[in-house]
Amino acid sequence: MEKYDIDDEFDPSYMRCAIELARRGTGAVNPNPLVGAVIVKDGRIIGEGYHVRYGELHAERAAFASLKDQADAEGAVMYVTLEPCCHFGKQPPCVDAIIEHKIRKVYCGSDDPNAMVAGKGFKRLRDAGIEVYTHCLKAECDAINGIFFKYIVNKQPYVTMKYAMTMDGRIATHTGASKWITGEASRAYVMELRNRHKGIMAGIGTVLADDPMLTCRIEKSTDRDTDNVRNPIRIVCDSKLRIPEDSQIVQTAGEIETIVATTAAGASDSAKCERLKDKGVSIIETEDVDGQVDLRQLMTILGGKGIDGILLEGGGELNYSMVSEGLVDEACVFIAPKIFGGEGKYSPVSGTGVDVPADAHMFGLDEVRRFDEDVMLRYKKV
Amino acid sequence: MEKYDIDDEFDPSYMRCAIELARRGTGAVNPNPLVGAVIVKDGRIIGEGYHVRYGELHAERAAFASLKDQADAEGAVMYVTLEPCCHFGKQPPCVDAIIEHKIRKVYCGSDDPNAMVAGKGFKRLRDAGIEVYTHCLKAECDAINGIFFKYIVNKQPYVTMKYAMTMDGRIATHTGASKWITGEASRAYVMELRNRHKGIMAGIGTVLADDPMLTCRIEKSTDRDTDNVRNPIRIVCDSKLRIPEDSQIVQTAGEIETIVATTAAGASDSAKCERLKDKGVSIIETEDVDGQVDLRQLMTILGGKGIDGILLEGGGELNYSMVSEGLVDEACVFIAPKIFGGEGKYSPVSGTGVDVPADAHMFGLDEVRRFDEDVMLRYKKV
Repeated sequence: MEKYDIDDEFDPSYMRCAIELARRGTGAVNPNPLVGAVIVKDGRIIGEGYHVRYGELHAERAAFASLKDQADAEGAVMYVTLEPCCHFGKQPPCVDAIIEHKIRKVYCGSDDPNAMVAGKGFKRLRDAGIEVYTHCLKAECDAINGIFFKYIVNKQPYVTMKYAMTMDGRIATHTGASKWITGEASRAYVMELRNRHKGIMAGIGTVLADDPMLTCRIEKSTDRDTDNVRNPIRIVCDSKLRIPEDSQIVQTAGEIETIVATTAAGASDSAKCERLKDKGVSIIETEDVDGQVDLRQLMTILGGKGIDGILLEGGGELNYSMVSEGLVDEACVFIAPKIFGGEGKYSPVSGTGVDVPADAHMFGLDEVRRFDEDVMLRYKKV
Repeated sequence: MEKYDIDDEFDPSYMRCAIELARRGTGAVNPNPLVGAVIVKDGRIIGEGYHVRYGELHAERAAFASLKDQADAEGAVMYVTLEPCCHFGKQPPCVDAIIEHKIRKVYCGSDDPNAMVAGKGFKRLRDAGIEVYTHCLKAECDAINGIFFKYIVNKQPYVTMKYAMTMDGRIATHTGASKWITGEASRAYVMELRNRHKGIMAGIGTVLADDPMLTCRIEKSTDRDTDNVRNPIRIVCDSKLRIPEDSQIVQTAGEIETIVATTAAGASDSAKCERLKDKGVSIIETEDVDGQVDLRQLMTILGGKGIDGILLEGGGELNYSMVSEGLVDEACVFIAPKIFGGEGKYSPVSGTGVDVPADAHMFGLDEVRRFDEDVMLRYKKV
């Protein structure tokens, strides 16, 4: 059993309940954080809520709204996954609601690094005589908001690189065939990853080879408001603007937001640019770095557009460029129980590569998870 | 809590104790199985033993030998990881000892597929009025004797393919540098794997590139009889007999058993053959299969020499040949939390490769284990 440096009344199961509630907002709250809250009185949950959608009620207020009787909150304990806000945004400050409802004690998980909150929320509560414990199950609470924590601080998207490979490190056979490497459970989880990120990024090589849709296909489930499921914004890195006008991505750009990032060389074909724009594609032109899109500049531009998280489903070249620029925050590596062999053309990360092991791009192992016979290794940048 | 389809007296912790005892014989009992036994009376262990070394006492007799008073065994319960033998080999039958000691009940894990035992051991015990339960924690008991179970049935070595790669599937950087990929904990476990297998196999490419020793370097530990640690027999696949006479392996062949497998083309340099033999190298000549050693024939020859298990530490070519011939029973894949990138020359399994994913060589995921920041995935042939 874990030990907590909190008081004896703290019950981690309530905080885990709040975390599960928070997750239900996945894909719908960005660029806000996922937040869940539970109100406990006399050993049972009397109210619960989460931030369902950007612009709507915050978790704490949603929890109060769920009470049978507003007066029940008096003397109750609140578990909330993130420091309550104390500023007016799309919604009035949550600390006011907590004080008004005469909550006795607040257990909180993550700190809010947002400069407008950052400890001020806790102070307001304590000044009102409410007992406050912070960093309760902090690591578990922090884990659901990697995207928010990065974006709120530096306005750059949090990038998760995802690839699926065989146990011998191949993303395709020597002929280029890659359907399928992993099993259904893994592929279903990739759809969750797509839902979790506001943007999805691929290279033009992948578009030319596979003509993918890059959409989010998720079955209805009781775990989530199904109308929270939405397609990520598709971002194609295409320095020479080679994207075919009859590709699935371009053909569906009218319905699903689509960005093609290119360089001056690509944008010089202004007639093609115009035709792509007519079909709904947004064109972003960056500086030219060795004939490629300037990925650092692109990240800044995408961040400026409110894209707080990107799932990178690149081929080996784009993956390597992103990794070597230090732009990959997390990697989800799916490994299937099969061997392709063959001369190693199709590797998940290619490019120039490092010369010696000491120069390797290092990550930290964060999670090991089985999906049937596949394994997913989740790494964080170190 | 697991449920057991055994009687209420069964306590899995005693069987797990017997399994741990059995493991202590690793590296020393081949081609016998690892076996451990525990004698329990009045809720405590009064005797324990394991098969320490080939030719010495079997586990059951070792357990009896550990009793303070031989009469204590009367009415006691024995936990043993493998069906007791009922035939005379290097040692007299264990069933006789169990009967003579008036053991009341026997819990047994694995069946012995050896045709000379195969159920006869159980029958003898039951005929003597002893209560016998079989298949107690069978999967855990079976897991320690994969080598024995294969070898006893078909006299071919059980082959474990081991490789260490980065999270992007590389066994070296594009320059060929590979020291080190994984961390100390992983490398220490590889030494355990070397100790567990009677033979270790590499290709001539690896010998030319790295000039390895392929020895077993294990620190003393309380977990094992340190004199059980021994070097595996080194087997180099070298169809053209290119092995340098000044290589570390050849230079140490006088002290550490060394086999070079070659073809008629390789063996045609009889002067070199003779010089290698003078240095202690055994030469095995196989048929020529596409210019390579006939690996199937080689396995039969090695099995005939009593080599019941081989750790395959090949490069990509040899690994692929072994996999595609269906000769790999198990794979231990170590994955380090780092990215090398680069064009994919150094892959763990290369060769021709399969054309489409449906033709992949399939394995079953058997174990996921962390070694600090590395992960080991253990697969079994399906």
